[in-house]
Parts: sequence; structure tokens; C-alpha cells
Amino acid sequence: MQLDFFFFVGSTYTYLSVSRIAKRIEGTPVRVNWRPFDVRSIMQEQNNLPFRDKPVKTAYMWRDIERRAHRHGLEWAGVPQYPVDPDLLANRIAILASQEGWCEEFAQAIYRRWFLHGARKSWNDIVNETLTSLRRTPEDIVDRANGHDIRRALSAQTAAARESGVFGSPSFLVSGELFWGDDRLEEAIDWATTR
Amino acid sequence: MQLDFFFFVGSTYTYLSVSRIAKRIEGTPVRVNWRPFDVRSIMQEQNNLPFRDKPVKTAYMWRDIERRAHRHGLEWAGVPQYPVDPDLLANRIAILASQEGWCEEFAQAIYRRWFLHGARKSWNDIVNETLTSLRRTPEDIVDRANGHDIRRALSAQTAAARESGVFGSPSFLVSGELFWGDDRLEEAIDWATTR
Repeated sequence: MQLDFFFFVGSTYTYLSVSRIAKRIEGTPVRVNWRPFDVRSIMQEQNNLPFRDKPVKTAYMWRDIERRAHRHGLEWAGVPQYPVDPDLLANRIAILASQEGWCEEFAQAIYRRWFLHGARKSWNDIVNETLTSLRRTPEDIVDRANGHDIRRALSAQTAAARESGVFGSPSFLVSGELFWGDDRLEEAIDWATTR
Repeated sequence: MQLDFFFFVGSTYTYLSVSRIAKRIEGTPVRVNWRPFDVRSIMQEQNNLPFRDKPVKTAYMWRDIERRAHRHGLEWAGVPQYPVDPDLLANRIAILASQEGWCEEFAQAIYRRWFLHGARKSWNDIVNETLTSLRRTPEDIVDRANGHDIRRALSAQTAAARESGVFGSPSFLVSGELFWGDDRLEEAIDWATTR
């Protein structure tokens, strides 16, 4: 059974899914297909801006993520910098990584660095340190991630997500059935394993 | 342990909580305080309009509610009419009912009638049939719900919700800790029973 995991490096709740999905599918026949995409452009197209100019809802969102990190045994180091990845560099690297088979480790590593060790660092430093920690050469990876092929591939992945009805990150697609939000991960896995 | 259940008759996901909260607290020491409030004015104040002009997200929302109704063993009769309660009549009746001790049965009854038997009926008919099914006289109840005291009480309840940080329905408040969304009901009950 395949579960398509659509995610965007920069989504807040996606920290939870990126950090726990591997453990959550252990012992099941589910295989995860990691699919980075540009949720930001889809949300802007759909005028779906759940946190912009919404301080009460935003404060709740961070508290909710903190509680759920504790609930799932994940690390938490306070509210991280936000928003991030203004020119989609990390998401383009994720695309490159997905083509080369290291997308999962990149996503986990950059979320850890952003959420747990990212205070007072520039986003570029976070990206570079993540790549170095994975024994990749930042200059080489960034150069390729900035190329036309990868930009086109991110656009194509975003179009595929849009066509599947995906409007937020994280989203899980199982046999055409869409689940949105880290809090639907268990339901998506159940869907994959009981039908 | 008290769990304040802030709800708005007209919220979609609130169908799930209204229908299952009683069963969910069975066997726990948790007591539910049913607190109707005007979430619509709070959401408008905060520019928090998650479904307006968002057809993709709205379609997902109904499918998600349908799936979760099945998951929780609740009835489902297709997407109900929406939006409802344009002049807050049902919510004012809920306030009156909360003062007189029949708020829970009113909330359950009107949600059943709206979601399960409300197709092709006017909202006023749904309200009146709900009251009749509870052996209340619609004219009497509506007359009192239209009075100044009840209008003031709804405003006061809405102000109290706002002061507690409530920004959506359903919300659960336990010892000052806020949980938003039907999918956080279990977490709110855990909070109440394990601390």
C-alpha cells in the first residue's frame, strides 16, 4: 500500500508528521512516497491564509503543536522562526533529494535544524548546515536546486498535488482518498491498511 | 473536573462533538459545562473565515466530517444545508436552555434535525420542530429567546469565550488550557483526567 505524503518545508504542523511518520508505519505494509510541493502558491491561489494577521489563532497553533510534540514524544525547543524558505530553496532541494533517494533524511534533518537548533540563524545557514550534516556539499546541491530542471519539477509536483485536491501541508493521499493535517495521519494509515 | 464546551449552533464540525461528547466522558470524572456562544462574530473580528470562497477546502471539510462521523459511529445523511441560523435564533435558544438546564438536549436535537432531517426545510421549521420534539412550545421559547435578557446573555457568553482565547467552535477549556476542534476532544478529556 502506498501513502503519498505531500509536504512543504515551511509548514508548521508538518514538523510533527515529518518527525513521526516513519515510526508510525513500522510494522504495517504501508510505504511512504515523500512528495515535496509548493503549498504556498496553492494557498495563495485559494485565498487560504489561515495564520496571516490572525494572532490569536497563530498563538493557539504554536501551543497546539507544542502539546502534540510532547504527546508524540518529539522534541520541542520553543516557537521556531517563521515564516521560512522565502524563495523555496529548501523545497527545491527536497525535490532534488526526492529524485536521488534522500528526501526523507533531508526533510527530517532540516525540520530538526529549523525547530530545534534554528534560533538566531539565517535560513541559508540552516539549509547549509543541514546539507553538511548529511555529508552533501552545499554549493553543489544549491547550485543544482537553483537550476531550471528542479524548478520545473517543483512546479510539476505542485500541479500534481493541486489535481489531487491537496490544499494544505501535510496531506496524505491513499488510493485517491485525501487526508489533511498531521492529526489525520493515523486515519490515513488505517485507510491504507483496512481497505 | 470541569470541561467547558464552547459551541456554536451552525458550526459544521460541532455536529461531531455535540453528538459524541456525552458518551466520551462516560466513566470519567469529567463534567461538561455546555456554553453556547457567537463564534461568528469572533471569527469576523479576527478575519478568520476558513471556508468563505474556498470551495476546495470546503469540499474536503464535508468529506472529512462524513468520514469521522462513520469512524465514531454517528449517523450521516449527506451534506446538510449551510450556513444556518442567520440571526442567531438557535444560539439564543441554546443560551435560554443553558439557563434552564436543557441545553445539552437542545443542542443534540437541533444538530440531529439539521444534519439528518433538515433537507428542504427552512431553518425556522427546523428550530420549531426541534422545540416541539422536546415538548417545548415554540412560540413561547422563541419569544423569550428574542428578548433583551437573552441577547445580553449571548453577548456576555461570547465575551467570556473571547477572553479565554476561544476563536472557533467547538472549543474545550480545561483548567485554563484551550483545545480547538472536535479532533481535540480526546486530548481535552485526557488533560482533565491526568493532571
